[in-house]
Amino acid sequence: MTWRYALMMVPAAADDARTDFAETFTAVDPAFPALSVGELSTQRGDGIFESIGVVDGHAQEAEAHLDRLAHSARLCDLPAPNLAQWREAVLQTAAHAPQRGEGVIKLILSRGVEHGPTPTAWLTAADAPDFTAPRENGVRLVTLDRGLDSGAAARAPWLLLGAKTLSYAVNMAAIREAKRRGADDALFVSSDGIVLEAPTASLILRFGDRFVTPAHDGGILPGTTQLSLFEHLEVLGHQATYETIPHARLAAADAAWLVSSVRLAAPVSAIDGMPLSVDRELSASFNRYLLSPRD
Amino acid sequence: MTWRYALMMVPAAADDARTDFAETFTAVDPAFPALSVGELSTQRGDGIFESIGVVDGHAQEAEAHLDRLAHSARLCDLPAPNLAQWREAVLQTAAHAPQRGEGVIKLILSRGVEHGPTPTAWLTAADAPDFTAPRENGVRLVTLDRGLDSGAAARAPWLLLGAKTLSYAVNMAAIREAKRRGADDALFVSSDGIVLEAPTASLILRFGDRFVTPAHDGGILPGTTQLSLFEHLEVLGHQATYETIPHARLAAADAAWLVSSVRLAAPVSAIDGMPLSVDRELSASFNRYLLSPRD
Repeated sequence: MTWRYALMMVPAAADDARTDFAETFTAVDPAFPALSVGELSTQRGDGIFESIGVVDGHAQEAEAHLDRLAHSARLCDLPAPNLAQWREAVLQTAAHAPQRGEGVIKLILSRGVEHGPTPTAWLTAADAPDFTAPRENGVRLVTLDRGLDSGAAARAPWLLLGAKTLSYAVNMAAIREAKRRGADDALFVSSDGIVLEAPTASLILRFGDRFVTPAHDGGILPGTTQLSLFEHLEVLGHQATYETIPHARLAAADAAWLVSSVRLAAPVSAIDGMPLSVDRELSASFNRYLLSPRD
Repeated sequence: MTWRYALMMVPAAADDARTDFAETFTAVDPAFPALSVGELSTQRGDGIFESIGVVDGHAQEAEAHLDRLAHSARLCDLPAPNLAQWREAVLQTAAHAPQRGEGVIKLILSRGVEHGPTPTAWLTAADAPDFTAPRENGVRLVTLDRGLDSGAAARAPWLLLGAKTLSYAVNMAAIREAKRRGADDALFVSSDGIVLEAPTASLILRFGDRFVTPAHDGGILPGTTQLSLFEHLEVLGHQATYETIPHARLAAADAAWLVSSVRLAAPVSAIDGMPLSVDRELSASFNRYLLSPRD
C-alpha cells in the first residue's frame, strides 16, 4: 500500500502566537486538484521548498529544514514563515506516515496566486523510492559547468544562490544530461573551476582521514544532511572541514558521497569516468546513522 | 467586468492528425483548484510557457509563440507539443476574450504530475494590466549582473538559456531588486559585460538611424515582439541589426525600448540613473503597430 498525503495550509503571520494551528490545515487528496491555475509557483517557479526525510513515522531534522525554509524566504523576499505553524503541519503529516519504512514530506511556500491570496502553502508526503542500490553500489557522477563563477553569489544576490527555490528546471536538466552521458547524477562546478554541489545533494569528499565539503560561501545550498553527518563524524573523532575545492583536486579524493535528506548517503563510484573506491562499510554506517531518529 | 478564463488540455501526441481537438479541452474556473499538488511545474518550475497578447479578441502572433513553445520543449526534453492542438486552444481562449481591449493568454506545458499523467498542459487568460504609463512615460532600468558569462549558453546547454522555462524565480528577484533601487525594471548583463535582455522583455537600442538588439546567440530568449518590430522597421526602410553590445556602449545609445508581448514597447527613460530621451511619437507609433492585428 502506497502512502500519499497532502495538506493545504493558510499561512499565518510570523508573529501569530497561537498554540494550535489545526484550523489552518486542510487535508486534501493528493490526486485531486488543489491548486488554482494562477499559482505563481506553477507559472514562475516563484516560491521555496524543503524535502524532509521520514523514517518509521519520524520527520528527520525538522528544525534544520524549518530554519532553512526561513532562510530561503528571506533571500526571496517572501513573508517570514510562522515556524510553529509549519512545525505543527510537519508533525501532523508525519503522524499519518506508515509506522515502518521511509518517506518524504515536501514543504512548499509559494508567492501566492495571481489575483488571489498571497502567499500560499502546502505539504505533500509519500513513500520514498527504494534507494538501496545507490546507497550500496554508489552513483557515477559527471561534472557539469554551472555557468556561474564562484564570486557570483556575493556579487549578485538576486541570483538567489543559497535559496532552495522552486525554480529547479536547470537542476532537472543537469540530471538528464548526466544520464545521457551514462552517469547517474551531476556534480556542478563553477565556471572558474570550483566544485559546488549536485543538483539535489551535497558532496562530501574523503582525503585520507579528513572529510571535506565545499565551503558554504553562498554559492551553494547549505546541506542539512551534510551538516548532520559532519556532526556525527566529529563525535566519532574525525576531522570534517569546509574548503574551496578546485576541480583538479577531485582526482586526489580517496572516497566521495552525495548526501541528501531522502536518498541519504550515496557513495560515489566514479567521477567523469574516473573510478572511486566505494567503502561499503563506511557508507552503511553513514546510512545507519542517517536512518536513526534525528532532531 | 474582469475577463478571466482557463482551459485544461490533455496534450495530444505531436503526430496526432485530428482536425478537431475540442474534446481534449476543459474550461475551468480560474479561481477554483484545477492542478494537483504533485504538479512538477509547481514543485520544480519544470515546464515551459508563452504569453500571447490579445487585442480586441485577436491573439497576436500566435504562430511565433507556438514555434517558440516547440523550441523551448526541445531544449527542455519535453514531448513535442502538437501545435495544431495548441493553436485550437489559443483560438478557443481568444474567442472568449472581450471584443475590445487588451488581454493576455498564457500557455503552460508542464513536465507532468509526480505519480501521475505526464506531460500536463493548460492555458489561462485575463485582461492585461493598464500599461499606458510605461508606454508613454517610459521605464527606468538598472543593469544587473546575470552571473553567467556570454559563452555559457554554447558551453552548457543544460542551463536552458534560450528556453522560456517556468523557473523564473531569478527573473522575478531581479525585478524586485530593480524596484528596491528606485527603478522600474532590470536589464541583465553577462558577467563579462555583454548586454542581454530584461527579465521579461527584449531590449532594442537606437544608435542614430540604426536599431540594434542583442545578438541571439542562445544566451537570451528570442523575442517575438522584438522580431515583429524589426520586420516593421525594415518595411519602413530602417536598418535593424543584431549585435554584441558591450555594457559601455549603452551610454552611446540615442534611445532604447523594452519590448514584450503584453506591455509592448516601453521607452527607456534612464539606465543606471543616466537619462535617455523618450521619443514619445516614435514609441506611440511602435505601439500602434504592435496593437494592430498581427499574425
